Amino acid sequence: MTTAILTLSCRNRAGIVGTVGNFLYQHGIDIREAQQFDDRASGQFFMRVVFEPLDASAPKPDFKPIADSYGMNWAITETAHRPRAMILVSRFDHCLVDLLYRQRTGELPMDIAGIIANHPRETYEHLDLDGIPFHHLPIAAETKMEQEAEIWRLVRDSGAELVILARYMQVLSDALVAKLAGRCINIHHSFLPGFKGAKPYHQAYARGVKLIGATAHYVTTALDEGPIIEQDVERISHGDTPETLVRKGRDIERRVLARAVLFHVERRVFISGSKTVVFGG
Amino acid sequence: MTTAILTLSCRNRAGIVGTVGNFLYQHGIDIREAQQFDDRASGQFFMRVVFEPLDASAPKPDFKPIADSYGMNWAITETAHRPRAMILVSRFDHCLVDLLYRQRTGELPMDIAGIIANHPRETYEHLDLDGIPFHHLPIAAETKMEQEAEIWRLVRDSGAELVILARYMQVLSDALVAKLAGRCINIHHSFLPGFKGAKPYHQAYARGVKLIGATAHYVTTALDEGPIIEQDVERISHGDTPETLVRKGRDIERRVLARAVLFHVERRVFISGSKTVVFGG
Amino acid sequence: MTTAILTLSCRNRAGIVGTVGNFLYQHGIDIREAQQFDDRASGQFFMRVVFEPLDASAPKPDFKPIADSYGMNWAITETAHRPRAMILVSRFDHCLVDLLYRQRTGELPMDIAGIIANHPRETYEHLDLDGIPFHHLPIAAETKMEQEAEIWRLVRDSGAELVILARYMQVLSDALVAKLAGRCINIHHSFLPGFKGAKPYHQAYARGVKLIGATAHYVTTALDEGPIIEQDVERISHGDTPETLVRKGRDIERRVLARAVLFHVERRVFISGSKTVVFGG
Amino acid sequence: MTTAILTLSCRNRAGIVGTVGNFLYQHGIDIREAQQFDDRASGQFFMRVVFEPLDASAPKPDFKPIADSYGMNWAITETAHRPRAMILVSRFDHCLVDLLYRQRTGELPMDIAGIIANHPRETYEHLDLDGIPFHHLPIAAETKMEQEAEIWRLVRDSGAELVILARYMQVLSDALVAKLAGRCINIHHSFLPGFKGAKPYHQAYARGVKLIGATAHYVTTALDEGPIIEQDVERISHGDTPETLVRKGRDIERRVLARAVLFHVERRVFISGSKTVVFGG
Repeated sequence: MTTAILTLSCRNRAGIVGTVGNFLYQHGIDIREAQQFDDRASGQFFMRVVFEPLDASAPKPDFKPIADSYGMNWAITETAHRPRAMILVSRFDHCLVDLLYRQRTGELPMDIAGIIANHPRETYEHLDLDGIPFHHLPIAAETKMEQEAEIWRLVRDSGAELVILARYMQVLSDALVAKLAGRCINIHHSFLPGFKGAKPYHQAYARGVKLIGATAHYVTTALDEGPIIEQDVERISHGDTPETLVRKGRDIERRVLARAVLFHVERRVFISGSKTVVFGG
Repeated sequence: MTTAILTLSCRNRAGIVGTVGNFLYQHGIDIREAQQFDDRASGQFFMRVVFEPLDASAPKPDFKPIADSYGMNWAITETAHRPRAMILVSRFDHCLVDLLYRQRTGELPMDIAGIIANHPRETYEHLDLDGIPFHHLPIAAETKMEQEAEIWRLVRDSGAELVILARYMQVLSDALVAKLAGRCINIHHSFLPGFKGAKPYHQAYARGVKLIGATAHYVTTALDEGPIIEQDVERISHGDTPETLVRKGRDIERRVLARAVLFHVERRVFISGSKTVVFGG
Repeated sequence: MTTAILTLSCRNRAGIVGTVGNFLYQHGIDIREAQQFDDRASGQFFMRVVFEPLDASAPKPDFKPIADSYGMNWAITETAHRPRAMILVSRFDHCLVDLLYRQRTGELPMDIAGIIANHPRETYEHLDLDGIPFHHLPIAAETKMEQEAEIWRLVRDSGAELVILARYMQVLSDALVAKLAGRCINIHHSFLPGFKGAKPYHQAYARGVKLIGATAHYVTTALDEGPIIEQDVERISHGDTPETLVRKGRDIERRVLARAVLFHVERRVFISGSKTVVFGG
Repeated sequence: MTTAILTLSCRNRAGIVGTVGNFLYQHGIDIREAQQFDDRASGQFFMRVVFEPLDASAPKPDFKPIADSYGMNWAITETAHRPRAMILVSRFDHCLVDLLYRQRTGELPMDIAGIIANHPRETYEHLDLDGIPFHHLPIAAETKMEQEAEIWRLVRDSGAELVILARYMQVLSDALVAKLAGRCINIHHSFLPGFKGAKPYHQAYARGVKLIGATAHYVTTALDEGPIIEQDVERISHGDTPETLVRKGRDIERRVLARAVLFHVERRVFISGSKTVVFGG
């Protein structure tokens, strides 16, 4: 085993940091990066350790006993592991194009299992998919059930661990959301909790805010209310129209979604109730 | 007359910019700064011109005929004019202290007509009022009517043109709001439209947003929904508590309120429906 | 003639705003957008007017007499005019890819005359040039003169009005810079004036700054010292390495260069000595 | 002993995190907050732990043996300890006024040992020192040696652990700087490394940057080159003059200096070569 990431969460109890640190030390492991958070409000403890065994041929450390004694939710993932992601998109492809570029250049250490779009392939000209499977799954009110069943089948069969809604404009049913709990990231084109739902830039324009933003969050059954992973804003003025807001917003959406996906892929994000703990990097 | 500011708004019609510019030129006036905005959505036109007569002894130009022909709402104010402001405050005085410092150092070109607080003078130790009248107007549900009548009397009798709610936590009645239309600025400690009402930092903490903010707006009868003048944000993290948010938020509130007051005093702000046009500087 | 943009600059004199506005009014022209700046320090005046003739079939207004009387530098350009841009790139193509996407989606209203790279076509896989001419012009110290002569020939023969150095890492000779004065935009990957020259992210890392940035500027003979058009920054920490700075910096470079190019193409930028006046939008 | 902060740094070696955590656990100590950083480039390790003994009457843990075995630079400071700070100021008092307010309201958990100014008391009207000693130490080229000797005497005799140059415009001699190594924070009114030295806002104006900033750093013998603790920026435009830059800059200086002082007082800052490691909060 080479470089790996240990992530864990549990109810806080005295001694966790010492116990975990000591466990790794006893197993000839060098800690490269470590962050922890003791949430006094919820009583939950979160920890992320990037480590490297001093002897690469040594067996993987058996963390289970300690984890069980603390009732931890935990995982050890080798850094070399590249999670597979399924990306869903609708008509606007700026986020999709941006994610593909970052993945291709190595910035996003993941593999793309496929792209699911509710518009046909021709909608996304100039997109060099380089072998990535493209699935056109149109949707209408009366075919939503079948379309979602197909989304689920594709996600499951492709081994996708992460689903990214890259400006996919259809609302996922509660049933599909439940299957993707904690592993489906959406980019909403507003600075939540403001301007939920449709046409947020038009809502922002009407309200006369002086900053617009975008929010990346895990999808839950409550629309646009899942745990927020990342947000950012840009300044606007009275001279902006809904069209210029859409244009300026695209840049915020791209970078916010990309940061959120990178955080998730690097296992920096923990869901804590309706919020997230993000050990940034 | 020396340096003055012409502000005007009306339904847009061809030729306003040329007509106004030409009028000033004909009257031996030099334009120092000019900004205009043609709001296509509402059909309204706004203009702000800072000018200086080439001959200081020449009479003030008679703008009324042009203004009437366009049905303009307008005013010419000499830059030397210092508007009088009444500041209202509750227990937290960080915004008040900040405004007093800026006014004293000449950064805010206005005079302070007085300070109205619903807490006694002793609450604000170390505050050198330097002769500014301090009025302790306590308030309870059953005395609200009288207290507001007194606020109104003080505002009116002091000649205050502007009322600043500097973290004044009482909600003004619709009646008082109506008297202060377009000249009462409030600082709300959230990034509107999110987290209206009470304890916005606690609401933000619960929601798990990654940025908090503050909003300065004109007060209207709909709580926290008046035309926004200025906003700003700061990044926060899972490690923040409601207390650290309150602390970090104070800085955002101070600078957002100060910018909004300066914009207003420099006559850079126009109310356009439920929004503002701000000719920044 | 339909919508057009008038840009002008000259030594400031009383009456310009009124004269120009009145001229347009007399010629049955409706002003859609107007911004002006009277630079007291330099005595220069700048103006940008977006206008639309009320009668599209009317002849173009003859602005020359007025312009000559004020000694103006001026131009009237129809909004429909799409300037042609030549883009130069070296190994890192993130800015090029971003500009191509924005141009293709209509966000950048310009045509791309060609791409000049000092690396071969294969370096830029997955780039769908869609017919845009690609020119591989390798460069070495002893072939620089010929390579630059070829750059110039391509720029001239293609009718390119704008040259964009999109992370083109070769330093243009003074001779070539002189030919491209006022129409060559470079993106430097630091927040100037800090960290000029090579490896700015490594310089920033060594200095321990807490924010990194990027700067888009017109190229002059003094390296990284031309008039700045746009800049932006991002927060970093002690945990960042030169590699993460390079990664985070790419996003800043992309958006700063794109904003600068859009400002230029929309004729919002004026060079004033060693600085720029930007009538933002 | 109640809540305390352990800070340590040393050459990195395997096992530190586990050893320290385990030590605290063995001593019945609960870790409330912990951050560490393994600087691969320098080989240095830094750690900050906020802890609380489960039994407040238990003796302070003897950390020395572990510390010695790792060759650590370390300290355990009770959170209740309030460091004493000496503040130096020149003509512009906005930073001083801001620090006094924050200290008075409890935001900065420190005591103010005194204020040293090179201007007389009358310069700072409306400043309620509330018993804080004020020392007027004028300075001229020929009296600099004596003046600095007096500064040093005051710092030493007052027990001041921290010296804050709050827009103190005199350059400290190398000799005085040496005595204050690692405990003297200066606010420079530019975004370093740009615009070192005098009149940075005028330099920024001349350069035509689109953002201005301020930098808080530890003072070293190289002017404006000490390890940076915190920085921030604000957007400006061609319309700004040196005067408006000075005005806008004051807000950035106040908040940057205040953040840096709070970080230092909360023992979140480590000097690492010419840089800092800041475990933010």
